[in-house]
Amino acid sequence: MDTGSTAWILTSTAAVLLMVPGLALFYGGMTGARSILNMIMMTFGAVAIVGVLWTVVGYSAAFGDSYGGLGILGNLTEHVGLGDLIAEDPDATIPPTLFAIFQALFACITVALISGALADRIKFGAWMVFAAAWALLVYFPVAHWVFAFDSDTVVGGWIANDLGAIDFAGGTAVHINAGVAALAVVLVLGKRSNFPSVPKPGNLPLVMLGAGVLWFGWFGFNGGSALAAGNSASVVLLNTFNATCAAMLSWMVVEKVRDGHATTLGAASGAITGLVAITPSCGAVTPVGALALGAVAGVICPLAVSLKYKLGYDDALDVVGVHMVGGIVGTVLIGFLASADAPNGKDGLFYGGGFGLLGTQTVAALAVLAYSFVVTLVIAFVIKKTMGLRVEGDVEASGIDFAIHKELAYDHLDHPVILTVEEPVTEDSGKEKVEA
Amino acid sequence: MDTGSTAWILTSTAAVLLMVPGLALFYGGMTGARSILNMIMMTFGAVAIVGVLWTVVGYSAAFGDSYGGLGILGNLTEHVGLGDLIAEDPDATIPPTLFAIFQALFACITVALISGALADRIKFGAWMVFAAAWALLVYFPVAHWVFAFDSDTVVGGWIANDLGAIDFAGGTAVHINAGVAALAVVLVLGKRSNFPSVPKPGNLPLVMLGAGVLWFGWFGFNGGSALAAGNSASVVLLNTFNATCAAMLSWMVVEKVRDGHATTLGAASGAITGLVAITPSCGAVTPVGALALGAVAGVICPLAVSLKYKLGYDDALDVVGVHMVGGIVGTVLIGFLASADAPNGKDGLFYGGGFGLLGTQTVAALAVLAYSFVVTLVIAFVIKKTMGLRVEGDVEASGIDFAIHKELAYDHLDHPVILTVEEPVTEDSGKEKVEA
Amino acid sequence: MDTGSTAWILTSTAAVLLMVPGLALFYGGMTGARSILNMIMMTFGAVAIVGVLWTVVGYSAAFGDSYGGLGILGNLTEHVGLGDLIAEDPDATIPPTLFAIFQALFACITVALISGALADRIKFGAWMVFAAAWALLVYFPVAHWVFAFDSDTVVGGWIANDLGAIDFAGGTAVHINAGVAALAVVLVLGKRSNFPSVPKPGNLPLVMLGAGVLWFGWFGFNGGSALAAGNSASVVLLNTFNATCAAMLSWMVVEKVRDGHATTLGAASGAITGLVAITPSCGAVTPVGALALGAVAGVICPLAVSLKYKLGYDDALDVVGVHMVGGIVGTVLIGFLASADAPNGKDGLFYGGGFGLLGTQTVAALAVLAYSFVVTLVIAFVIKKTMGLRVEGDVEASGIDFAIHKELAYDHLDHPVILTVEEPVTEDSGKEKVEA
Repeated sequence: MDTGSTAWILTSTAAVLLMVPGLALFYGGMTGARSILNMIMMTFGAVAIVGVLWTVVGYSAAFGDSYGGLGILGNLTEHVGLGDLIAEDPDATIPPTLFAIFQALFACITVALISGALADRIKFGAWMVFAAAWALLVYFPVAHWVFAFDSDTVVGGWIANDLGAIDFAGGTAVHINAGVAALAVVLVLGKRSNFPSVPKPGNLPLVMLGAGVLWFGWFGFNGGSALAAGNSASVVLLNTFNATCAAMLSWMVVEKVRDGHATTLGAASGAITGLVAITPSCGAVTPVGALALGAVAGVICPLAVSLKYKLGYDDALDVVGVHMVGGIVGTVLIGFLASADAPNGKDGLFYGGGFGLLGTQTVAALAVLAYSFVVTLVIAFVIKKTMGLRVEGDVEASGIDFAIHKELAYDHLDHPVILTVEEPVTEDSGKEKVEA
Repeated sequence: MDTGSTAWILTSTAAVLLMVPGLALFYGGMTGARSILNMIMMTFGAVAIVGVLWTVVGYSAAFGDSYGGLGILGNLTEHVGLGDLIAEDPDATIPPTLFAIFQALFACITVALISGALADRIKFGAWMVFAAAWALLVYFPVAHWVFAFDSDTVVGGWIANDLGAIDFAGGTAVHINAGVAALAVVLVLGKRSNFPSVPKPGNLPLVMLGAGVLWFGWFGFNGGSALAAGNSASVVLLNTFNATCAAMLSWMVVEKVRDGHATTLGAASGAITGLVAITPSCGAVTPVGALALGAVAGVICPLAVSLKYKLGYDDALDVVGVHMVGGIVGTVLIGFLASADAPNGKDGLFYGGGFGLLGTQTVAALAVLAYSFVVTLVIAFVIKKTMGLRVEGDVEASGIDFAIHKELAYDHLDHPVILTVEEPVTEDSGKEKVEA
Repeated sequence: MDTGSTAWILTSTAAVLLMVPGLALFYGGMTGARSILNMIMMTFGAVAIVGVLWTVVGYSAAFGDSYGGLGILGNLTEHVGLGDLIAEDPDATIPPTLFAIFQALFACITVALISGALADRIKFGAWMVFAAAWALLVYFPVAHWVFAFDSDTVVGGWIANDLGAIDFAGGTAVHINAGVAALAVVLVLGKRSNFPSVPKPGNLPLVMLGAGVLWFGWFGFNGGSALAAGNSASVVLLNTFNATCAAMLSWMVVEKVRDGHATTLGAASGAITGLVAITPSCGAVTPVGALALGAVAGVICPLAVSLKYKLGYDDALDVVGVHMVGGIVGTVLIGFLASADAPNGKDGLFYGGGFGLLGTQTVAALAVLAYSFVVTLVIAFVIKKTMGLRVEGDVEASGIDFAIHKELAYDHLDHPVILTVEEPVTEDSGKEKVEA
């Protein structure tokens, strides 16, 4: 065991955990003040249910020995309860439970990502059931495909080993996966009643806080995926930073050119876009390649985001436009921008590597797109036909927080104004009257 | 010295530091908008005063050689100023100052925990004096009992060494200690004037943020208590995560069954409850044991919280119900759920270990409960009779922030509405008029 | 390579990254609710542009071989694009890219610090140009002076090597540099139209959150500057904590004595002041020295902050009073308080070291003060005369967020009250009417 690498993955695990409130606020701040709590609850609720499932069966499905050696699904009963992992393993670089908890958070975050598309209109119970079903039927298998590398004792997943695609930290398994699933659910769930006239973001400072916290957590997400404290993790952090800066700038430039002004929502979206795009590629490109990749993603995604208005699907907080499209951009651009100097050690088209890598990356992206889209459609459809997916119409109009959770986010919200002409409000009594 | 373990404890220290704003917002968001600043200030103020005391005398009291070898109190003058710790110690796994600063934050956080029970009605000066006195008379000795292990050169505390109770990261010294102290202060301080009709939470998104940040910090709190980067810390993180997820789910289920809906406040409380309960036990149970322990705590604590209404003590933000009760649950359940496979290496009742451990754990819990309750009562009573504990009545009604700190949390609060019938507000001028 | 030290610097880098949202909220919460987004955007925008510049040329300017061996500026083309750093270097303690990304964040944060002085009145485009120019012409050279140590292959900067001043983590290069630059820009930019009658802080809980997050990040900033996981980093964390606690207390005492009450804004400012003052000195003093240094800074800076009203410069969020003055205090007090027992191993005046160190420290402070002030004045003046620095007057009165970014921070802001006398608001319809 290496204590330094163990220290870094312990840290990375904690950093990814901070993405839980980070994501909750990033999404929550974009909803109206009467829907923010429900959005936050979807993140926390998904983390809780998927966290429990991970110990029970998820880790086995993702990292157990592949059934029939096919690379499709891990042995579901191999590590039930994870009690077999808690003993010391002197041969491992990092303790087995550490890898298990690090990857647990990948599962939790990926499921939570989907919720952003569903703002203002999904039942909380239906969301919890969806989160569990989607983890079991989509995330755990796809994580096996992408993250389970063959070892002396275990056969891993087909994308990681047979196809040999590069996906350092989850461009396919996390972002394309969650992004296309969001699209599938939205198609079954339908638009908000007033779409495209939707509530404005209720708390943009929380969006920026969320984006910043996610950026921090992503250093653990990408850097920890090196599974060691060393040169790879260091290059990954530099690349992750570069892509984020470049994507933020290019998204702001797109807005300035198109709309005449750069917005905080654009800066935040640009940062997340850069982070999504560099997720698969953070070990495959040079620092300049990371700048280029971020800059490209920061131009493509703001255009992709506006497609929802043209095509008419209500991807409320742009999960499709940022995670699916950004994930595709990052996964496919590896085929062009990969440099053998970088930790992954492969050349893409622009570095003389030919078309091979581009093909490999495209196959990986398409496989996850297709599987996740179809299975998610089925899950969402089954829930819709059984317990129902959608809250009642009035709830949507008046805000989902109070209807579902019997809470309001801020105490200034829950006391309606009571003013009568007979009692003009005075300087002393006024505000209290408005707020009480 | 081991650089990997040093890296992890440096990191853990920083993570625990982030619990300062985490706790401040977790508590602050639960108070009304006109009391949030005072609540935040109680956390920051306690950290500042206890931080200074730690260097002066606290570290010596907790980790100095036990007076008379009794395990009651460390030699107060052994490390005054901590200047003797700053030289390199080649024999130590981690540098001596690192252990000192890590433990400093335990002291600071524990004192700050108490403040949640005292919302809306305690003088800030009285709180600062209380924080100092409580650290000196309660926390430093109890930390010696629980956290000071015997070494070649130093005799440690009686709970850690003579009794041999398991308390990985502070179920007794931190949570039972702070929780029962909160109860004692509340009994001396009295209820808020309108209890049980109390202000609603003013900013629930901040509560969720605080809970998430505390969760992150707790990875350092529990994981760092392994004092090394290795298998123990890894198991601890997995267990800490599992208990939190399970407790969050079970608290939400209790709410759904009892009240018909799950709330964000419940989810946040459930998360903290799971974290409290796993604090002593994170090295003693298996991952499944952690799920069970969290689930049990998440059922018991929401019931315990509602006791304040029946028994009539105003534990404003549920410090007693969550920290005292959750701490007892976690400490005592070790007697049932401990598994010799886990890092602590002892079997509890359910794993064939007999009743011995259960007895040991119960004694540790009772000792801290009794000592902390009695001494805290005395401290609170003395302050009440000398400088006074409680703010004036009107302050409480109109919000404590402006009265005590001459500040209001948000700029929309400090400008009362001025509307007259003669000037109906128009679309252009309206909002400005209301806010200006 | 040492994996433990690598783990700690990876962590420190992530921690410093979290200072980005920390600073954005610390500053943002101090502005009014209609200016917070612009303030947040200045931090994120500066980070993005300086982050890109760092890879292109900044790292070379700061850490390239000094032109002519003079210690003034590094070779600008030595590491263009940083592709030469991504290979493993078996001789280095930490990977070369890790040092590069750690230092990248120092550059980004330093530039962003300046923005606090410019609240409510600078064009966003002008700020972005300023950030780029200031990084190129001021920060990169000064970082070379202070942070580039001579090695076998490279000649470093004059302050670090020839003068031999102690500046552990950037009292001169970061805080004096940013603070005096803020003063220079403010002199060119002018006061807000109603100065000294300025908007009250719009969101003090965010200020406290920002301060807490900055405190956490500072553990990485100072602790990571040890460039290894070991005794130095450990002493640095203890000292950093001590100075912060002491400065917070002394600022609160100053307020209590002077104004009759301690404020959250004071506590937050005190914390940052302690952190600024301990930045250069965290490796030079004992834990008691750190307490003393923090306490002194916490008395001097609140007095310095009030100078802006007497002298009439509009340092909106006290960048000059806290960062310039606090940086000077910390840098110069090393001359008195340094102890040879501490990691830097030098005695100051109070420890029998004579006046030498005091002189050295003063020269370093004055050099950075003078260079930064003059060059910043020129940059600001050139931007003012070309593209213009300042937004139009009406924008300032109505809030800069909507004017510049076409956004408002909260959804309760953008819907003016519509009330007519004919339709008195009822309990059911009221609030919706006010908000819709």
